[in-house]
Amino acid sequence: MTGDSRTYVALSGGIGGAKLALGLARLLGERLTVIVNTGDDFEHLGLTISPDVDTTLYTLAGVANPETGWGRRDETWSFMKAVAELGGPTWFKLGDRDLAIHVERTRRLRAGETLTSVTAHLAARLGVAARVLPMSDEPVRTAVETETGTLAFQDYFAREQCRPAVRRIRYDGAETARPTVQIEAALSAPTLAGIIICPSNPWLSVDPILAVPGMREAIRASSAPVIAVSPIIGGKAVKGPTAKIMAELGLAVDVASIARHYGDLLDALVVDAADRATADALPVPASIADTLMQTTDDKIALARHCLSLCERLAAAPPKPGKRRPAETQA
Amino acid sequence: MTGDSRTYVALSGGIGGAKLALGLARLLGERLTVIVNTGDDFEHLGLTISPDVDTTLYTLAGVANPETGWGRRDETWSFMKAVAELGGPTWFKLGDRDLAIHVERTRRLRAGETLTSVTAHLAARLGVAARVLPMSDEPVRTAVETETGTLAFQDYFAREQCRPAVRRIRYDGAETARPTVQIEAALSAPTLAGIIICPSNPWLSVDPILAVPGMREAIRASSAPVIAVSPIIGGKAVKGPTAKIMAELGLAVDVASIARHYGDLLDALVVDAADRATADALPVPASIADTLMQTTDDKIALARHCLSLCERLAAAPPKPGKRRPAETQA
Repeated sequence: MTGDSRTYVALSGGIGGAKLALGLARLLGERLTVIVNTGDDFEHLGLTISPDVDTTLYTLAGVANPETGWGRRDETWSFMKAVAELGGPTWFKLGDRDLAIHVERTRRLRAGETLTSVTAHLAARLGVAARVLPMSDEPVRTAVETETGTLAFQDYFAREQCRPAVRRIRYDGAETARPTVQIEAALSAPTLAGIIICPSNPWLSVDPILAVPGMREAIRASSAPVIAVSPIIGGKAVKGPTAKIMAELGLAVDVASIARHYGDLLDALVVDAADRATADALPVPASIADTLMQTTDDKIALARHCLSLCERLAAAPPKPGKRRPAETQA
Repeated sequence: MTGDSRTYVALSGGIGGAKLALGLARLLGERLTVIVNTGDDFEHLGLTISPDVDTTLYTLAGVANPETGWGRRDETWSFMKAVAELGGPTWFKLGDRDLAIHVERTRRLRAGETLTSVTAHLAARLGVAARVLPMSDEPVRTAVETETGTLAFQDYFAREQCRPAVRRIRYDGAETARPTVQIEAALSAPTLAGIIICPSNPWLSVDPILAVPGMREAIRASSAPVIAVSPIIGGKAVKGPTAKIMAELGLAVDVASIARHYGDLLDALVVDAADRATADALPVPASIADTLMQTTDDKIALARHCLSLCERLAAAPPKPGKRRPAETQA
């Protein structure tokens, strides 16, 4: 696609979303912007840790740990062993290499840089061509109300291993957060040809992004098609607590629940071939693809499917209330 | 020495001093208190680093790096490589294991603990029986006035590798610092049988300790003998910039300069057999020993020499103005 100037925005959380982001990045390079959830961010051992931003950076840089999906490839664990020896907290695993990104981020944030600026610096150093944008420079902290009380996200996710049953999920600080100028520019770019919600956990990873005031509006205001890839395949989550949380929230664990969750934000939902039978009954148009991403080729193939879908949607008559590039240009 | 309740206080900086502290610790265990220089402490990468405290802890715990004298044995360097990759500062070497002590110290200091309390915790976790006391809980920062301007200690020592010629050494913050109650208790203990100034750099490592208001007075007020071990052997420093600094300050690089530097604070100066010829001409009584500490046995032998010397000095008539335990008991 030499000379193609079309740009795309992906919304992503951690491991699952980063897989599709990698596929998109291989096809798009610097024409891809990934808006990443920072609701999982927290302060630990005096460090500001941005797990989803790091997973995205590491994945796009090709230095992610292929076994875990989080952390770095060829990691060593001397620091963690010494922390244990000194009686420090060890429930959040920090590898020796991985530690550098937290220390460097914390140092730069304390020096007054924004998280967006720090992330751009880290991406450049890691050789990531795509733009990786934290969903906000203001802190938003996902809190999980469970049967045993309210837990900060990492207390729920890493320390408690998602065991407590979820009653409700809050995004503390979201009401006063703002999308950054970089995000506003990406979502209002005349070159924007598609907005792709990656198959991350809708409640834990995508909703915090959509909770930033103005984000949902900017997505709706875009002339580009908006699509999502279902994180539910054949009634199961590929990985992580998505299915468990859906059940605890009283939702059926199926693609229909995902479609209803995003509702009219979407122009289409990409569902796996395993869910073909239910696709026609969805409240949004469905697009069938192989969505299980195991190899890099799988990721690129699904990314290619998403880009083609955006292209077809842009060429089709818009749904009511939606502008299309043709109208904008008219 | 079963049932021996005599206690000793050592004053020490980093590598050189820690060698004698190790010898003393082997003989005394928990009857040894080491007051350690914190003038080298600094903030780096958001961490509060106490190089001399750590060298002392690691040495006494038997986990020090035997090649360098600083840092930890069996160290790995993944963090530092990743910091370099991310464009962070790499002039101060932080090993993966070593990093844990800085992170844990910083975390506890931020939570409101004193440096003394944090150090006691770390010592306990590392299995150090001797008491290791930072010279103050208030920050004192050694600054080196050089021909090219004033440098913070680590900028002079680690970053500039002691290259600039020293004009004067300052101990910023010393005027408002205080010895801790733990130090006051150690120096006024009725069991105190000797105060030993380790062969650390007198200007860079011992003077910051003595610059803490009340420290010199508490040492003078003690009834116990005060001795120092010369860091100069045969006109040379064993390691580090002591000889270079002495020359730059216009001092002869010999044991007489060391004796004059400590002056009447001392009851005796331990000098190496290599300096026997000049020992009689010193302004303080000299005691000849093998002071070059290469093996653990060397360290223990020199420690034993120091303890015997204290014992002999305590039994001898005191110098004018000095109290002795016998008088106290009379």
